[in-house]
Amino acid sequence: MQLGMIGLGRMGANLVRRLMRDGHRCVVYDLDREAVQKLEKEGATAASSLHDLVDKLEKPRNAWLMLPAGVVQSTLDQLAALLDPGDTVIDGGNSYYRDDITRAKQLAPRGVHYVDCGTSGGVWGLERGYCLMIGGEEEAVGRLDPVFRAIAPGTGNAEPTPGRTRTDGTASQGYLHCGPSGAGHFVKMVHNGVEYGMMAAIAEGLGIIKHADAGLRSRSVDAETAPLREPEAYRYEIDVAEVAEVWRRGSVVGSWLVDLVADALSRSPELDDFAGRVSDSGEGRWTVIAAVEESVPAPVISAALTERYESRALGEFRDKVLSAMRGEFGGHAEKAR
Amino acid sequence: MQLGMIGLGRMGANLVRRLMRDGHRCVVYDLDREAVQKLEKEGATAASSLHDLVDKLEKPRNAWLMLPAGVVQSTLDQLAALLDPGDTVIDGGNSYYRDDITRAKQLAPRGVHYVDCGTSGGVWGLERGYCLMIGGEEEAVGRLDPVFRAIAPGTGNAEPTPGRTRTDGTASQGYLHCGPSGAGHFVKMVHNGVEYGMMAAIAEGLGIIKHADAGLRSRSVDAETAPLREPEAYRYEIDVAEVAEVWRRGSVVGSWLVDLVADALSRSPELDDFAGRVSDSGEGRWTVIAAVEESVPAPVISAALTERYESRALGEFRDKVLSAMRGEFGGHAEKAR
Amino acid sequence: MQLGMIGLGRMGANLVRRLMRDGHRCVVYDLDREAVQKLEKEGATAASSLHDLVDKLEKPRNAWLMLPAGVVQSTLDQLAALLDPGDTVIDGGNSYYRDDITRAKQLAPRGVHYVDCGTSGGVWGLERGYCLMIGGEEEAVGRLDPVFRAIAPGTGNAEPTPGRTRTDGTASQGYLHCGPSGAGHFVKMVHNGVEYGMMAAIAEGLGIIKHADAGLRSRSVDAETAPLREPEAYRYEIDVAEVAEVWRRGSVVGSWLVDLVADALSRSPELDDFAGRVSDSGEGRWTVIAAVEESVPAPVISAALTERYESRALGEFRDKVLSAMRGEFGGHAEKAR
Amino acid sequence: MQLGMIGLGRMGANLVRRLMRDGHRCVVYDLDREAVQKLEKEGATAASSLHDLVDKLEKPRNAWLMLPAGVVQSTLDQLAALLDPGDTVIDGGNSYYRDDITRAKQLAPRGVHYVDCGTSGGVWGLERGYCLMIGGEEEAVGRLDPVFRAIAPGTGNAEPTPGRTRTDGTASQGYLHCGPSGAGHFVKMVHNGVEYGMMAAIAEGLGIIKHADAGLRSRSVDAETAPLREPEAYRYEIDVAEVAEVWRRGSVVGSWLVDLVADALSRSPELDDFAGRVSDSGEGRWTVIAAVEESVPAPVISAALTERYESRALGEFRDKVLSAMRGEFGGHAEKAR
Repeated sequence: MQLGMIGLGRMGANLVRRLMRDGHRCVVYDLDREAVQKLEKEGATAASSLHDLVDKLEKPRNAWLMLPAGVVQSTLDQLAALLDPGDTVIDGGNSYYRDDITRAKQLAPRGVHYVDCGTSGGVWGLERGYCLMIGGEEEAVGRLDPVFRAIAPGTGNAEPTPGRTRTDGTASQGYLHCGPSGAGHFVKMVHNGVEYGMMAAIAEGLGIIKHADAGLRSRSVDAETAPLREPEAYRYEIDVAEVAEVWRRGSVVGSWLVDLVADALSRSPELDDFAGRVSDSGEGRWTVIAAVEESVPAPVISAALTERYESRALGEFRDKVLSAMRGEFGGHAEKAR
Repeated sequence: MQLGMIGLGRMGANLVRRLMRDGHRCVVYDLDREAVQKLEKEGATAASSLHDLVDKLEKPRNAWLMLPAGVVQSTLDQLAALLDPGDTVIDGGNSYYRDDITRAKQLAPRGVHYVDCGTSGGVWGLERGYCLMIGGEEEAVGRLDPVFRAIAPGTGNAEPTPGRTRTDGTASQGYLHCGPSGAGHFVKMVHNGVEYGMMAAIAEGLGIIKHADAGLRSRSVDAETAPLREPEAYRYEIDVAEVAEVWRRGSVVGSWLVDLVADALSRSPELDDFAGRVSDSGEGRWTVIAAVEESVPAPVISAALTERYESRALGEFRDKVLSAMRGEFGGHAEKAR
Repeated sequence: MQLGMIGLGRMGANLVRRLMRDGHRCVVYDLDREAVQKLEKEGATAASSLHDLVDKLEKPRNAWLMLPAGVVQSTLDQLAALLDPGDTVIDGGNSYYRDDITRAKQLAPRGVHYVDCGTSGGVWGLERGYCLMIGGEEEAVGRLDPVFRAIAPGTGNAEPTPGRTRTDGTASQGYLHCGPSGAGHFVKMVHNGVEYGMMAAIAEGLGIIKHADAGLRSRSVDAETAPLREPEAYRYEIDVAEVAEVWRRGSVVGSWLVDLVADALSRSPELDDFAGRVSDSGEGRWTVIAAVEESVPAPVISAALTERYESRALGEFRDKVLSAMRGEFGGHAEKAR
Repeated sequence: MQLGMIGLGRMGANLVRRLMRDGHRCVVYDLDREAVQKLEKEGATAASSLHDLVDKLEKPRNAWLMLPAGVVQSTLDQLAALLDPGDTVIDGGNSYYRDDITRAKQLAPRGVHYVDCGTSGGVWGLERGYCLMIGGEEEAVGRLDPVFRAIAPGTGNAEPTPGRTRTDGTASQGYLHCGPSGAGHFVKMVHNGVEYGMMAAIAEGLGIIKHADAGLRSRSVDAETAPLREPEAYRYEIDVAEVAEVWRRGSVVGSWLVDLVADALSRSPELDDFAGRVSDSGEGRWTVIAAVEESVPAPVISAALTERYESRALGEFRDKVLSAMRGEFGGHAEKAR
């Protein structure tokens, strides 16, 4: 098939590469001309503007947006004005699923299809393939099947699920039509919420192992510091990098995330390049809000989000209030760092 | 009655004052001679050593320890060697209740009674009286009733509990024999756990109100920062000190802690004197451990403790692991502060 | 002043009573005619419809809505159509503050003022007065000052805040103009979030004390049940009702909520009338969402909300997934109840 | 090498099988004679008692305990009395690491070595190999290297860690000597804590996806139930089993646990065989306690443990207290189920 790709950042460019590897033809556009030229050399058709991209696509057109969330709406507005009935826009970025619902409704009267596609895989996707979570009308999604199939990992080296009897469906190929508009980004949003929780569990565990030497370090002895009751139980100096490595094989926590952390620790056991200010980019928040609104308890994902806020010291006023209260009732002075 | 007080810090000294106000006689001892002299001028009998204190007490003796947790055991060991059968030691500090069980067992063969007494009230106790949570044998605790009654607040200006029909018991006077050895400190430990949770709830709430202006401040727009979807919903600049003040009257959250925070904020609305490093001094930890071992869920008290750890940036390695993982899978660079 | 009250449930009716006690005149309306008649007997002017209520109010009119959140919008729509420029609507219920922003904007072009007023105090407000958190334009709020003053507790029996030097403002009278439209309900919303957290802390603490007898009860010994390592540390049978009572006086956790729980436990120590399905009515959820969107960590309030969901067993599918996973990797069969 | 295996449950038996496959000789013992006979048929040497097992082992003996935590101590006591200086006991079960410290100290004077070995892999270990986390003296652990190597997965089908430059060490073979006595079980304990957190993240995420249809179901409209503000945002009926399947390939959350849950859901999409009472067997608790004592924040692992307690409705008294408080201040009646 032919596909237009708008946005040639790391992910957009690699999607194009996977598509071309599989024999699909791509028209590519980005504000950054270098990014366009680079893919042109690899075989893509360069477009110099949205207008040019639309011109170079055969009808019915397929135009894939791979953009930061903040510029999707404005780009979509411009693009939509250029499209014809029967054309399809795919938003492959990290849009909020509620925006998908709105956008699909806005495009529908003009006969333009809108497909939302949550795309997971990060910098490794070129090699591993991308896990795709797709929302939109059956027909529009179905027509794009060759595109999704090319981008997705396929069965890869994951063993078949033993209990699986159904032979239809594409989930075992790494892509899934999850439901109507927004369903793809909804599932991707929750995927990222799960990711936050899993990452936090691993990071906390390694932190606990790192501090298994607490009994070897002296702790201030004063009324403001809880003493370690049994220091002899915390006298281990454990090689955290090796623990991550050993967990990669045969353990219950074996996972791609443990693979990655083992890699990072193998290169830098103390992770000195990092200050520990952990960003969050929206999906975790939206997952927590969805849980609250659906009335389902999700304490772990919620705690994982909060943990990221704490890592950036966003609770400062709260903490001052706590110290102030302690000062009021107990005459506790705050400890100097 | 006559009572020996060992440890004349703020709380020990004020206990002595409340006892003397009520007509009790006190023999006082502290390593700090000035503290001893000060109370001597107020009418107490000064002791120059533990030995001297024991000599000056009439049998059966009552010796109250009001010491930092770290020195209780060594002081108790010295003291115990000087006491006679029938004497009673009261530990009024913040000992771990399990130590009470051990200590009572150690003293029992020698006929020395051990009473544990959780003492709440902080710097305000001299005026308000102290809430006492007491553990130990019925007889030893009963004999000390006049002492406890003098220290406790009495009915004070708290209205009688409407539904209360029982007329026996001392709980409505502000002191309670909770059970055998350790029961007093157990209840005090949990009291402090509850205190952590209540403080955190208030502090978090005021923090949310403080940041109700989030939509007025610009937030970076990049892939690493979640945008505020509806900035127009966060355009309030609310006077947090006045909110604390208004909550003192008629609201559901009315409490001594809200009184205190209103006071602190009235003097310093931004709390600039505090950096927000919130100490914890053991009881919160022990409460969480008790909940875990009893198999009862206590997520709020647990989160309140964690929040204090976060305020002191104790999760640094964990956070570095998180940033490292994000770097691995997403090529996310950590944001500079 | 004269005020129209729409909605004569417990809170609406008691607001009317406090206003009339203070010499204000009230026109009252409710779908329930009995509720109207009851207040008519107490001196209010009965209205038979919204139309009638509007007719009976002098211009500029003041109409206070005290309705369940679900019917506010429809009632407001009907009422607004009957009002004239210069009239004021007060929403005293638990509306979402974002709706206030919208509603104020909708009424503004017609010259009708909109004031949002978070009202705390529950069934005790008639006697204690209601804590009022108010949002809206300065002028409209200012004009209603006599009404707010009558409803609020006044200084009551709360001592003045020691550090407070400012003598202006109404916070020390129990009511506060918090800011523009929505600010009142915003502060009330967070108040309820704080309330959730404080309630949870108290309830968890009493739960831990209740189960201090864990070592006296036998626990199954099998691979599916974690054994209690030191049962001798959990052999207390503590009178929870008496603990709540003693905490009322002199302790750091002293609060109206502890007063209430002491009352409930004094009447029913095992709380057998309750099954423990704890409802939540919106404000806690909105507080958590506000914290997430503002990027401030509020783990305690968040955990308190989650705890209520858990109490209603809303995590059932999640828990089945957990059991299923345990079955898969460990061959663990789920334990029968 | 020759090894004695005491305890022939699923894991003990499979360890023997992996050892025999690799050419090691095993003497096996269990109270259950059938279990012994079964392995005898597969080539193991049967022992009829601990005494017999010790007799049949060549010196220096290696005896591996694979027993429920509750019977380790008593079995070890009996066994130790039969061993000679130079012999080694390996505890491969889920003992608390503090017990390892004690046990190693008890055996040391008699010249008997003690090695603790956390063993992960569950029912799949026979095929996949077991991830081993080992504690004890260098010499004793080193001597057992062939045994550990046979049990561990080896490099298996996990790719080498790209950044890994060190070529020594056994972590990349799936087993690791973590440190002195207790270090193995410490790391295994934390592994299980991480496992709790990862499982919870996955389960919560699937729960949120399952309930993405909240807007399609009616929710009671009353003051006790928070309404769903935007039901149109929750109208997805998503096939949760397919989501788990698609996440297996190319996604960031790809993991053995997702493999397992995909399998469970492929066989039973509603998981009707489970009631959702999730057991915990000690390690999660101990991990939380370790974090508390080390002063490191671990909110996610802590929440995951709490979630299991909630799934078994262990917060009942707490929840009754909450309902009672709501009744007191708001006159809220508890909703019938």
